[in-house]
Amino acid sequence: MVRINENFIKIPATYLFSEIAKRIARHKLENPSADIIRMGIGDVTLPLPEACVEAMIKAAEEQRVSETFRGYGPEQGYDFLRRSIIENDFKALGIEADEIFVSDGAKSDTGNIGDIFSPNNKVAIANPSYPVYVDTNVMGGRAGEPTENGGWTDLIFLRCDESNGFVPELPAEPVDIIYLCYPNNPTGITLTKEQLRLWVDYARTNRAVILYDAAYEAFITEEDVPHSIYEIEGAKEVAIEFRSYSKTAGFTGMRCAYTVVPKTVMAFSESGENISLNKLWLRRHTTKFNGTSYVVQRAAEATYTPEGKEQVRNLVRYYMENARIIRQALQSVELKVFGGINSPYLWAKTPDGMNSWEYFDFLLKKKNIVCTPGAGFGSGGEGYVRFSAFGDRDRILEATERLVR
Amino acid sequence: MVRINENFIKIPATYLFSEIAKRIARHKLENPSADIIRMGIGDVTLPLPEACVEAMIKAAEEQRVSETFRGYGPEQGYDFLRRSIIENDFKALGIEADEIFVSDGAKSDTGNIGDIFSPNNKVAIANPSYPVYVDTNVMGGRAGEPTENGGWTDLIFLRCDESNGFVPELPAEPVDIIYLCYPNNPTGITLTKEQLRLWVDYARTNRAVILYDAAYEAFITEEDVPHSIYEIEGAKEVAIEFRSYSKTAGFTGMRCAYTVVPKTVMAFSESGENISLNKLWLRRHTTKFNGTSYVVQRAAEATYTPEGKEQVRNLVRYYMENARIIRQALQSVELKVFGGINSPYLWAKTPDGMNSWEYFDFLLKKKNIVCTPGAGFGSGGEGYVRFSAFGDRDRILEATERLVR
Repeated sequence: MVRINENFIKIPATYLFSEIAKRIARHKLENPSADIIRMGIGDVTLPLPEACVEAMIKAAEEQRVSETFRGYGPEQGYDFLRRSIIENDFKALGIEADEIFVSDGAKSDTGNIGDIFSPNNKVAIANPSYPVYVDTNVMGGRAGEPTENGGWTDLIFLRCDESNGFVPELPAEPVDIIYLCYPNNPTGITLTKEQLRLWVDYARTNRAVILYDAAYEAFITEEDVPHSIYEIEGAKEVAIEFRSYSKTAGFTGMRCAYTVVPKTVMAFSESGENISLNKLWLRRHTTKFNGTSYVVQRAAEATYTPEGKEQVRNLVRYYMENARIIRQALQSVELKVFGGINSPYLWAKTPDGMNSWEYFDFLLKKKNIVCTPGAGFGSGGEGYVRFSAFGDRDRILEATERLVR
Repeated sequence: MVRINENFIKIPATYLFSEIAKRIARHKLENPSADIIRMGIGDVTLPLPEACVEAMIKAAEEQRVSETFRGYGPEQGYDFLRRSIIENDFKALGIEADEIFVSDGAKSDTGNIGDIFSPNNKVAIANPSYPVYVDTNVMGGRAGEPTENGGWTDLIFLRCDESNGFVPELPAEPVDIIYLCYPNNPTGITLTKEQLRLWVDYARTNRAVILYDAAYEAFITEEDVPHSIYEIEGAKEVAIEFRSYSKTAGFTGMRCAYTVVPKTVMAFSESGENISLNKLWLRRHTTKFNGTSYVVQRAAEATYTPEGKEQVRNLVRYYMENARIIRQALQSVELKVFGGINSPYLWAKTPDGMNSWEYFDFLLKKKNIVCTPGAGFGSGGEGYVRFSAFGDRDRILEATERLVR
């Protein structure tokens, strides 16, 4: 009799986005003329950079004739893209091309990375956080059983709240795998080099691995904020880094990302042997994946051309100006707001002790504005909502006027 | 201390393709003027159908402007593609759109499907077979330990050899998960409806699940050969089917496939509950995957237009004429050959008791022809080599002349 992976049925169904959709639909039904502005979604809105469109069309044309047609590419990504990545972002950090694994998305990579680890590892995850970290560890058998407050018996949740400025403290008990995401989704917070160094040192001392999600690094505007964990000494021994073109270059519908697995990052076998995670991930990547679409890799490569870089910079600048406007508006109505300086996300404390959903309802019904209830990112998000700077400038200005009104 | 998934280090390193490359390189070094013809590779060679190129360029143009720009799409695939799939291939079989999951490749899907099953299932796999089935079950902890003859203690290998015409017999001991691939890679064999019905009935009786890899269905030319397992009564209770645009429409570098998971396919929880695998796969697909590239899905959709269909038919016809030519040549030199009638693969018995690698070397050194040694597909492939019909007609004709000479 065929048996399911029991862990799958432990995961509570996610109602966040369907519940948001349901409440919007009800509000619209009751107020057919309501002009609703969506500030909740983490999806980009500006079109793809011209350089990427052009590169993609050129690549599509190559597929038209035998002479330039390309079939299977290398699972780890084409050399042209891996070399561009190294040249532009990682050369100074000593990362090499065979430590780069091109993929179809950071969601896939942060989810699939669990394949190479034992179910017996102790995993630490920030609360609140991107739900994929928790859900994929549940699926992989590392979470234990669900608890009453939405937690899991075997996961270590790193508390992030106002008292620690949403910067998690080192865990009190030893952990083996640590998920860090900076600039953070959902709080928009970043770590300084000094703060990140604490984690790298912790991982080195405890022979732990850091899974560092840097999908939002392009939005960093301040000086002392590391773009890559490899800016920290010793990180190449303990950290895997996830990067993505999704938010940086408007690739959410294109699907391209990459993961950096330095050959010096080790984990241990039961017999105590040191095993290079680069070798294990290569095995996983070449066995369960067949490469990212050629035309998409050409589009990603185009982000490193002079025009591409300029166009990407303009996208980021636009969204960060949105973030500045939203931040100012939220502050002017005396909401406590975090993030939005090195991140497209703003994390606002709900006023008057409202919970996430109450404030969501208030904004929807009174202002026709949609945000994301913080509780959707874990119990640590209760009492907060997330605003996103992805959106049309005019609509953002209209929304901020409504907020202030 | 962070621990690896121990199963990963059990898998022996695969030397097949690197060993082939090494032997070719050595031969070239010794014979610099050798005109080598590659007939081993399972990758397409004809360019992408015009209709797909045009659709992709149109989609790329849409990404250029805000009005038509698309960000995140549904993880399961866009409605336009899922509806086209149903309309063209599955309507008559009673499959519905929410039973279709669009992905980036059948390799990903056949590999990742293991996520939703318990490690305690007994798995049956044909020998020889596509190596991904075995390797991903090793990774998922369902294979046990490697044995001396290249097998695994916990896997049931279904013997396929000349004595049974490469059609596996039902397993003697009960199994829970059965991998079937028809038209078969590497043997090129297909099952009749009657033969496939035996497996569906077995699965229904034993409450097992069939993972049916139909990546090569477009190459079927004969009447009584099922294109989909759902042509067999009752299959919708026990079978998941994998389809791909890779070989059919030249998408090996584009990356698009889909998996059919009928809502009626059940597996069982420890407490004996019936669990719909559609629900579990939806959970997996939406948690660890973020959709196939929009432009690629538009290209896939174009294979269902009248022009697209005609162009795909022409591709298939071209390769199948290649297959016919190769088959005839192999037979004319009195090799025993299987497949090549409903499949782009031909499976030839090596002459004079040579093993796979000996015959590989013979063809390389004496004829400057590259094939794939059957032993690369498991111990059951020893004594055979695989020829592929993907290739340029002139080169195939030249190769067959050399074979016959």
